[in-house]
Parts: sequence; structure tokens; C-alpha cells
Amino acid sequence: MSQPLPLPTIPELANSELTRQLLQVIDQKTKPLGALGRLETLALQLGLIQGRTNPVIQQPQIRVFAADHGLTRHGTSAYPSAVTAQMVHNFLLGGAAINVFARQHKIGLQVVDAGVDAEFDYHPALLDCKVRRGSRDAMTEAAMTEAECREALEQGMALVEHLPGNLLIVGEMGIGNTSAASLLLSRLGDLPLADCVGRGTGLDDEGLRHKQQILTQVLRHHQEAITPLAALRALGGLEIAMMVGALIQAASQRRILLMDGFIAGVALLVAEQLAPGVRQYAVFAHHSAEPGHEHLLRLLDAEPLLNMKMRLGEGSGAVLAYPLLQSACAFLNEMASFTDAGISGPADDTAE
Amino acid sequence: MSQPLPLPTIPELANSELTRQLLQVIDQKTKPLGALGRLETLALQLGLIQGRTNPVIQQPQIRVFAADHGLTRHGTSAYPSAVTAQMVHNFLLGGAAINVFARQHKIGLQVVDAGVDAEFDYHPALLDCKVRRGSRDAMTEAAMTEAECREALEQGMALVEHLPGNLLIVGEMGIGNTSAASLLLSRLGDLPLADCVGRGTGLDDEGLRHKQQILTQVLRHHQEAITPLAALRALGGLEIAMMVGALIQAASQRRILLMDGFIAGVALLVAEQLAPGVRQYAVFAHHSAEPGHEHLLRLLDAEPLLNMKMRLGEGSGAVLAYPLLQSACAFLNEMASFTDAGISGPADDTAE
Repeated sequence: MSQPLPLPTIPELANSELTRQLLQVIDQKTKPLGALGRLETLALQLGLIQGRTNPVIQQPQIRVFAADHGLTRHGTSAYPSAVTAQMVHNFLLGGAAINVFARQHKIGLQVVDAGVDAEFDYHPALLDCKVRRGSRDAMTEAAMTEAECREALEQGMALVEHLPGNLLIVGEMGIGNTSAASLLLSRLGDLPLADCVGRGTGLDDEGLRHKQQILTQVLRHHQEAITPLAALRALGGLEIAMMVGALIQAASQRRILLMDGFIAGVALLVAEQLAPGVRQYAVFAHHSAEPGHEHLLRLLDAEPLLNMKMRLGEGSGAVLAYPLLQSACAFLNEMASFTDAGISGPADDTAE
Repeated sequence: MSQPLPLPTIPELANSELTRQLLQVIDQKTKPLGALGRLETLALQLGLIQGRTNPVIQQPQIRVFAADHGLTRHGTSAYPSAVTAQMVHNFLLGGAAINVFARQHKIGLQVVDAGVDAEFDYHPALLDCKVRRGSRDAMTEAAMTEAECREALEQGMALVEHLPGNLLIVGEMGIGNTSAASLLLSRLGDLPLADCVGRGTGLDDEGLRHKQQILTQVLRHHQEAITPLAALRALGGLEIAMMVGALIQAASQRRILLMDGFIAGVALLVAEQLAPGVRQYAVFAHHSAEPGHEHLLRLLDAEPLLNMKMRLGEGSGAVLAYPLLQSACAFLNEMASFTDAGISGPADDTAE
């Protein structure tokens, strides 16, 4: 970028006094020490994010970022690009998986047109943030110009700033976006491309080989794009760039980031490199079946809550884990303590 | 038993025509083939259990079975026996983990006194099915007489028969019940005792060694108790026996069995051996941190939905997985198909 992008500060999460208080509350609940396992760790993190011993989740929000990808003209996806726009219509009609799961858990859902290669009529659940009708073909040029990349990041930040609630899920829809995510993971995670590439929506062996070939060429073409911002701009994904902006803004406001799978996770990787500290706000919801996700999780030192072998995107994995976050808050806020309930502690001599 | 216990028939689940129909519905949903992973397998199982392509969960129920254990006088648990009754009071006052999670998911909860060593006043959420104030000391005699074991099984069946709804969770509370479960798993699963014994509510190394020693003696004392019914009676657990009856009855009525962790899982093992076919109705909710559970899951060929490193019992792990079952039904019933939504299928030639 010719002038530096102004990024908000990410508040530091570590707080030894609050950690001590939270652990005390957790350990006083009527259960054997540690018996709620990862739900206890989760409760601790949510308490630290909200800066209180009685965290609550209010008005959770999903934004599904949609865009098309110039690279798809080289046959990198099992589905035609037209499906991106068709799926946007499906979201607006309420028929996609994410609609069903968001309704189930009463999570606010809007679709963000970050760069779909189609025009849409006005719809109250569609935010028009279109930067361009699809990213540029990364085989021959950067996926975004400097101005386009900056616009995508800024739109992502702007749309989160006044969002209601204190929890954000970023979902995505974009035929070809596993390619952009794999390229970014390989470059910014310094991983062999082969570890980062998978079948996406369902390529066969031949299709997978072809995708790997194309992506190898793209990486070579952009070998000088090594900073997070340069890599993002070159390897692209308008929806990925917009998610990066959204995640940075959300963390700066101490929102809980409930992370979906591979594509959203790559956006988090970029966000963390641009604005260190974002990752502390992330709760990893699910382990995607897309193979690059495993490597990404290792880089981010993350162990997701669910492993349902899903690979759908849209934010669907994140929404399925959402009730576990509610449970973590609920046990902190509602369970009786040993003192409240008049219950004996462990026996003094267990082997009398 | 002097006369054979009359057990209900368990309906066979396999139905190739319905399986074909369910797979067709699943594959026509607007998502890449298989992209919902284990949620698709779950939807298939729920459809088969209910005999329809549009399964629904109605009025889900938890019953928490509580009892004391004669063996605890040998110091097999980190907590004193009195905690069983104290926790029953905690359940009735709504302060335990299971109360919190059951409220969160609107699951009907009642506590079943299968054999607590205390007397309780009347409470609408407490079912008095007490067979005896605690099981007998398995170190010197069978944990239950023939009549007591039979009564526990029959009470378990009777209390499920007219239960509302179509999904049952059996939870448990009983200081000392990991010991009974470990003994039953070792005997009926033909596993070394060391693989089946863990720290329960939180024994230290010395306590664990002592527990293993005691349980080794108990197994030796009952070496002739090799049939499922003889083992159940000898090695005990009034709450385990009552859960066995409950699971058998529930499966015979084609209810979904949403399985919690180690103790409930051992009850399922006994139930399956007494009434083959029960296991087909089981959805495995969570992987317990109690080490015997791993071996039990292998025996039952089960892969649970969650792995939260929990070891609380009460049915808590099962309740946390419950929303995933709702999601499985919801996507079957509410998602648009490719035809509904007018969405293109995979490209004919992905490498054009």
C-alpha cells in the first residue's frame, strides 16, 4: 500500500487477577475439580474476553461474505462460478444450511456481497459491499489492486463497527475460495503447497492434480508477495480480505470471534499477522475435512471444539458449536457452588 | 434369576428402501456431496430410528439415576458417599450442571432414586424407585440379590414405558459408580481390569492404586459371574441396573438413546448383551476423560460426537451434544434441494 492502512489496536487479553477470580468461580462449582474439561477452559477465555466473571453472549451475529474468483477460469473448482450467485439467492430465500442452523440458534444472519460476479436486487438481508465483480485472475496479475484490497479491508472493518451483540461468526461462499485460502496458507504459513490444497467442493483426483498445478504457477508468479498485505492482495479473495478487516475490527472491540473452518481460519491467520493479538479472541469451532485446515490449526495452536468431518463453509461449523459457548457461560452463571449447596468436598482419607 | 426376565423385543433398524430414500434426500440438499460430514450420518440414523425421511425430536427427556454403593466403604472414591444424597438435593434445587444444561436446551429432567442411602421428602422432580439404601458390599456378597436386580431392571423399564417424547438420556449420580462400571466393563468386555479403572471424581495416584487393588479382589470373588445378568447382579450398581432396564425399554419403543459417557455406556453394554439390538438406537454424545470409556467405545464400535475431556456424569455430556441432533433433523427438514433452489451441479469438465 502506498500509505499505511490504519488498523485499530487489539486489547491485550492476559489479566492475572481476573484469571485467578475466574478459576476460583469455576473450581467452586458443584462438580469434581476439572470435570467439565474443555468447557472450563472455554468459560475462562470468554470471561477474559469480556473482562468479567459472568460473561454473557448477546445478539450473536453471522455475516456470510460472498465473492467470485478470477482463478476459477482455469478450472480450479468442481462447481461453476455461477453457483456463488445462486447460493446468495438461496441464502436470501432461507434455504441454505447456514439459514437452517442460524434459525435454530437465533443468530442474526446477513449476507455480504464482497465481490460476486452478478448484480442483485435490494434485499434487507444483503449488504452491498461489492468491490468488484470477482477478483482478478491471479495467474496473470494480483487478485486485487492496492485500492481494491484496501477497500475490502475497510468495508470489513466498517460493517462490524456498529454491529449489535458481542459475538461474530464470519462465514463465506465463493466458488474457488479454497484455492485462494490454500495459496495464502502456503505463503504466510511457509508450508509446502501440497499440504495446503484439497478437493474443495469435491474435485476428483484428476481435478485435484490440475488445481495443484495451477496454484503452483500462481505462487511462482507472485513470489515477491511475502508480507501479509502483499500476499493478501496478490493471492486474493475479496471475501477473504473483507473477513480479515471484519475480524480485526471485531477483536479491537473485544467481540468473541467464533471461528468456522478453513477459509475463515486463513482470514484469521492474515488478520493475526496484520494486527497481532486478534487470535486471542478466537474460539475455534470445528475441524474441517479440508486437509489444509489441520496445518492451519497447528500454526494457530488451536484445537477446535467439534470434529464433524464437515467441509461446507458458510459459517456452518461455527454455528453448530455455538451452544457450547452458551453452556460455558451458563455453568459459570447458574451452577451452585459447594458452599451454596452445602456439599462435602473430597474425603480426607480416600483409602481408610 | 430363577425365572427368565421377560424382555421386550428390539425392532431391527436396517431398512434398505428407507436408507436409499434418506440418502437421496440428503444428497439433494444444496451443499457439496457429503459436505455436512457426520451430521449426514446422524440424520440417516435418526431417520432410520423413526422410520421416516423427516425425523423430528419431541419432548426430549433426561432421567438421572442416583444410588449408593456398598463398595465405597473400602475407600474407592475421592468423595464420601454422603455426596450422592447432597447432589440429589442439588438437582432438586436446580443448581447442578445437568440442571443448567437441561434448562438451556428445554429437556425434561427428573431424578430417579434407584438406591440412595438416604430418605427424601416428596418432590415433583424426584421419582422414588428405591430398591435398597445402597447396593451391598460386592467385596463379600453380590451387590444385589436376584430379586433386587430384577426389581431395578423392571423399575427402569416401567418408568420409561409411558415417558413422553421420543428421545431419552440416562444420566447418573452415585459416589462409587465408576468402580461398578469398571468391574462390569472388565468382566463383560473381557478386558484387563487396569484398562477399565480410572480416577473417577479425582483420586490421586495412591487412591487409584488402592481402587485397583480393591476391584481386583472383587472381580476374583465373583469369578463365576460371567453371564450379563449374573455380572450385573454381582458387580452391581442399582442405578446401573435401572439404566439397563430403561435403555432396553426405550429401544423397544424406537426412542433415540442419546448416550452420555462411561457409566451410562456400560449400562448400554449390559443392555445390548441382554437384548441385542439396543445399540442401534444409540447416538454417542461424548468421549469421557475417564480412561475406560475409550475401551468401551471400541467394544461398542462407537465414535462420539464431542470430545470435551469431560468426566462429570449426570448426563451432562449427552445434553451438550443434543443440539447437534436437532441440527441433523433441521437440515433434513428445512434445507432447499438443488431443484428447489435452481442451483447448478458440479461442472461437467472441471479442468477445461
